[in-house]
Amino acid sequence: MNILTIFLLVLAGTFPSLVLSAFVNDKVTDLPGLTFQPNFDHYSGFLRAANDKNFHYWLTESSRDAAKDPLVLWLNGGPGCSSLDGLIEELGPFHVKDYGQSVYYNENTWNKFSNVLFLESPAGVGFSYSTSLNLTVSDDEVSLNNYMALLAFLTKFPEYQGRDFWITGESYAGVYIPTLAVRILGDKTNFPNFKGVAIGNGALDFPNNYNTMLPLFYYHALIRDDLYKDISQNCCNNNIGTCDVYGKFFDPNCRDKVINALGAANELNMYNLYDVCYYSPSASHKKAFIERQMRKAVGLPQRNENSATKAPLCAQTNNTFAYLNRADVRKSLHIPSSLPIWQECSDDVANHYIVTHFNVTAEFKQMIAAGIKILIYNGDVDTACNSIMNQQFLTALNLPVLGEKEKVNEPWHYSGQTGTAVAGFQTRFAENVDFLTLRGSGHFVPEDKPRESQQMIYNFINNLDYSTPMK
Amino acid sequence: MNILTIFLLVLAGTFPSLVLSAFVNDKVTDLPGLTFQPNFDHYSGFLRAANDKNFHYWLTESSRDAAKDPLVLWLNGGPGCSSLDGLIEELGPFHVKDYGQSVYYNENTWNKFSNVLFLESPAGVGFSYSTSLNLTVSDDEVSLNNYMALLAFLTKFPEYQGRDFWITGESYAGVYIPTLAVRILGDKTNFPNFKGVAIGNGALDFPNNYNTMLPLFYYHALIRDDLYKDISQNCCNNNIGTCDVYGKFFDPNCRDKVINALGAANELNMYNLYDVCYYSPSASHKKAFIERQMRKAVGLPQRNENSATKAPLCAQTNNTFAYLNRADVRKSLHIPSSLPIWQECSDDVANHYIVTHFNVTAEFKQMIAAGIKILIYNGDVDTACNSIMNQQFLTALNLPVLGEKEKVNEPWHYSGQTGTAVAGFQTRFAENVDFLTLRGSGHFVPEDKPRESQQMIYNFINNLDYSTPMK
Repeated sequence: MNILTIFLLVLAGTFPSLVLSAFVNDKVTDLPGLTFQPNFDHYSGFLRAANDKNFHYWLTESSRDAAKDPLVLWLNGGPGCSSLDGLIEELGPFHVKDYGQSVYYNENTWNKFSNVLFLESPAGVGFSYSTSLNLTVSDDEVSLNNYMALLAFLTKFPEYQGRDFWITGESYAGVYIPTLAVRILGDKTNFPNFKGVAIGNGALDFPNNYNTMLPLFYYHALIRDDLYKDISQNCCNNNIGTCDVYGKFFDPNCRDKVINALGAANELNMYNLYDVCYYSPSASHKKAFIERQMRKAVGLPQRNENSATKAPLCAQTNNTFAYLNRADVRKSLHIPSSLPIWQECSDDVANHYIVTHFNVTAEFKQMIAAGIKILIYNGDVDTACNSIMNQQFLTALNLPVLGEKEKVNEPWHYSGQTGTAVAGFQTRFAENVDFLTLRGSGHFVPEDKPRESQQMIYNFINNLDYSTPMK
Repeated sequence: MNILTIFLLVLAGTFPSLVLSAFVNDKVTDLPGLTFQPNFDHYSGFLRAANDKNFHYWLTESSRDAAKDPLVLWLNGGPGCSSLDGLIEELGPFHVKDYGQSVYYNENTWNKFSNVLFLESPAGVGFSYSTSLNLTVSDDEVSLNNYMALLAFLTKFPEYQGRDFWITGESYAGVYIPTLAVRILGDKTNFPNFKGVAIGNGALDFPNNYNTMLPLFYYHALIRDDLYKDISQNCCNNNIGTCDVYGKFFDPNCRDKVINALGAANELNMYNLYDVCYYSPSASHKKAFIERQMRKAVGLPQRNENSATKAPLCAQTNNTFAYLNRADVRKSLHIPSSLPIWQECSDDVANHYIVTHFNVTAEFKQMIAAGIKILIYNGDVDTACNSIMNQQFLTALNLPVLGEKEKVNEPWHYSGQTGTAVAGFQTRFAENVDFLTLRGSGHFVPEDKPRESQQMIYNFINNLDYSTPMK
């Protein structure tokens, strides 16, 4: 929504000034450190998610046609991690470098073709807060809070009422998104054009992540052959492919062997096995938060402290932290000075989080019945939420596979100026369900494969073949 | 051997002028296209490998202390591929760019600490030739020819008599090396200081490559889940981990399914799953030669033509070909003009090759009994000769694992100026047998991970921990 539109609306008196002032106040006019002039408007402020909860949002409008382009919600996972990570480190237009000093333009931003709403959820994450200081929430409460925040958004930005709407996100948002989608599907009044969901490396059936992780590690040469065979023979009836490895956590004869084996990649970046990380004994890797929380959430043992501190530091991970805690940046984003420092992931939220959806099959069946589009995509060198878990989750839905039955796997291609490459593989199911891999990508797909994921999402939203080059 | 040494030897009259002139004639004095001044001597010429066979060699002497540093033989595989690929594209000092126009120095060359002998073998490969034009050979004949060529080398370069000697190579050299090593072990007169072998991504038990490839593909997200389950249930008693997939080639009910599944990566670079290659429908990828020959050798079906022509072109693969076929280069390397053009891999050799060693366990047992050092290393994103095949091969030798029994896997680290990273994982067995992975490396380890592999080989030869930084 640009300033001319606002003036015209004011002159026309088409909606109340209270609403108008609401989003006018949220407009970001002087983002510090910019090295480019944005050709789109963006807004940062708060949305009422419950009586005691206010969620921070950052809306980056489309640089193409903000008034007509779809609205895309983005949610990071955790639980407890901020969607501003998604904005600054993955798919948003503002990427930060030089330890928070400067902001450069991400050519592969998704707001080249959509209005992207980044929502920090639940309360206690990033700048989102609870006035009652109660951070204990369950999956269902979070989806209700997210839904209420979206209603507040539509009140604040009425021009998005009835707009084509998509929900996207990654990791534990594999639970947030289906549970939220079911609520949205029940509200045709406010969301008459809810089109679909896209979930990256989602925790769709997290216990099965452990079952698949053991052979996945082995076939990536991460587990010693004799130890793998030991587990196979003594804990898995000599068949790891069908073994309930997750259940073996609770079998005292096998627990240590299994935990030992699943720690095989302790010194690697579990979110991207092939990251070339430099070893720093004193560094704690921000991303280790997510796994720790997931383990807590499902009652799994923590990795030992020694291993955690050995996690590799792969990048200048303090850029986002440093930037969002600058006083001038917080002022520009309309963050009250009374709020605590911004953190990428909140231990408090994770520690109080109540997981109830260990598997989101029921929500998928409701989405499928409603006919919305579903894209499940996975970077294929991630072990935190691996692609095999999600392939098996989709197979269990028993949808027919479209296309050539005999074709073992169908590549999709990234097409850029320099040529065409195999971006990954695709399986398209009946009922508008697609599964895509991104070859060589880790957990954070828009960060690891920015060009490929931009093309993928564009084609998903626009009902095009995934290999169609971006214009 | 520098020119001063030669003059001193001549003055001293210590060996016949015939031998002297032999290696003097082979000295390369004016290699075209050099962008640097070599600080080592190098020689190119021919060695008699049989009455009707002459093998081309290129010796790059050590830039440290040629007179004392060990002699390291390097053999590429195929069968039918040239070891000059190893020199120019992998571990040698002379790397070529600009489509054969210029030669730059490879900082990670192994001749920084050893005298590396590159031998083109068998006859018909590269510049090596058979005067009888008979290219049909078996594994055992090749090892005999290689042994005879080495004796000819010691006659030509007597100062290497009794030098510490190592045999290294990759791929199908996983057969060449153990069969040659057994001959060398039997000749204490000429090789009193044969120290050990290092084999990269070797074909140690090639039929098992196919058994392991099916689950390896699946756990790399390359095979559709429903098709994998179909094979598992209908061909493998629901247990792919222990399935004789190789045998299923000969079962008409499963053949098509299995071949289909093993073609899952047809559009990828099978030698490095994560290469970002640009798709070129008309390009034929040089490296596809090797697999085609291996399939022929073991009687496996070829991939269909359509797939072969779709293989991606990952680099300027014509550099070596263009360079070695320049008239001035051939003259500098003392290649008779009567010899045909140099090719990276020879179809003629591959088509006539007789594989007899589908598994080299017997040779390994002889090497172990003799007490020499053995290093098996594998780039872990290669599917041509995958790391799981070789781990299983080593496990079957039933050697005790050294170190902490409970440790699931032990990283080794690359240590450079910018920090330390996990280079891969190591398992050290009793009897001087080591297994190392190189994380994120494909089939051609010294090409994909030049720094890590240089450090690895240096430490192997010098009996140091693999994580020891290079000086």
